[in-house]
Amino acid sequence: MHLDVQWIVGFVDGEGCFHVGINPHPEMTAGFQVLPEFTVVQHQRDVSVLHALKSHFGCGVVLQEPRGPDGLPGGGLDHLRDRIVPFFVKHPLKTSKNVDFHKFRDVVLLMGERVHLTSEGIGEIRRIAATMNRGRSR
Amino acid sequence: MHLDVQWIVGFVDGEGCFHVGINPHPEMTAGFQVLPEFTVVQHQRDVSVLHALKSHFGCGVVLQEPRGPDGLPGGGLDHLRDRIVPFFVKHPLKTSKNVDFHKFRDVVLLMGERVHLTSEGIGEIRRIAATMNRGRSR
Repeated sequence: MHLDVQWIVGFVDGEGCFHVGINPHPEMTAGFQVLPEFTVVQHQRDVSVLHALKSHFGCGVVLQEPRGPDGLPGGGLDHLRDRIVPFFVKHPLKTSKNVDFHKFRDVVLLMGERVHLTSEGIGEIRRIAATMNRGRSR
Repeated sequence: MHLDVQWIVGFVDGEGCFHVGINPHPEMTAGFQVLPEFTVVQHQRDVSVLHALKSHFGCGVVLQEPRGPDGLPGGGLDHLRDRIVPFFVKHPLKTSKNVDFHKFRDVVLLMGERVHLTSEGIGEIRRIAATMNRGRSR
């Protein structure tokens, strides 16, 4: 299945999610693990679309939860920084999801500078993450 | 806001809904009113996208429910037949929503032939509508 670039932007405007998880993790220097995730969830019947997205970006994993919807996590930090983020910088989302994307991008770039390995960095990322998605003013 | 054709397809693959309502209506010849609806629902913060879609198709109404999401109903039968249906025939949806669209199209075309004004026609439309969306095998 060929996916047009603008189809991808429209579909992600509808179905995509940019999320930054911050979880306690005793083995990390600052005590927390930062997990930026780009996900697209679809019902099993449309798993072919997720495989086409994975193929387009050259990264990601198509997951199948038991009896649940399938998801396409966007991959590790390198993939997010080198493939996902540049795509949505070049082809901007049209909904307010673009606001979340830019915060997501900020976190990914901070992580590239290893800022998340310090307590101050975790605090900064936490402040950004708190204003994303449901934390965003509506 | 300019909307690329493929962005619209991707966005509707994610957020659009093709639905055929069949409601008892004593004033209709066959006792039922058939209401095909194409809707796109967005939070108030993204109402500009709905206005851009309305502008693109040259039809539809942007509705605002009290404190609820906004919707863009696709308009009357003529608009559905002349604007919405041809668009998604020319630019096919990529998800299984395309299956619903084609059933929706069948109903719109049947209504154009005034088939819905007979009991047999209502029965035929009811059979089609029952297999759409949640009624579709998954």
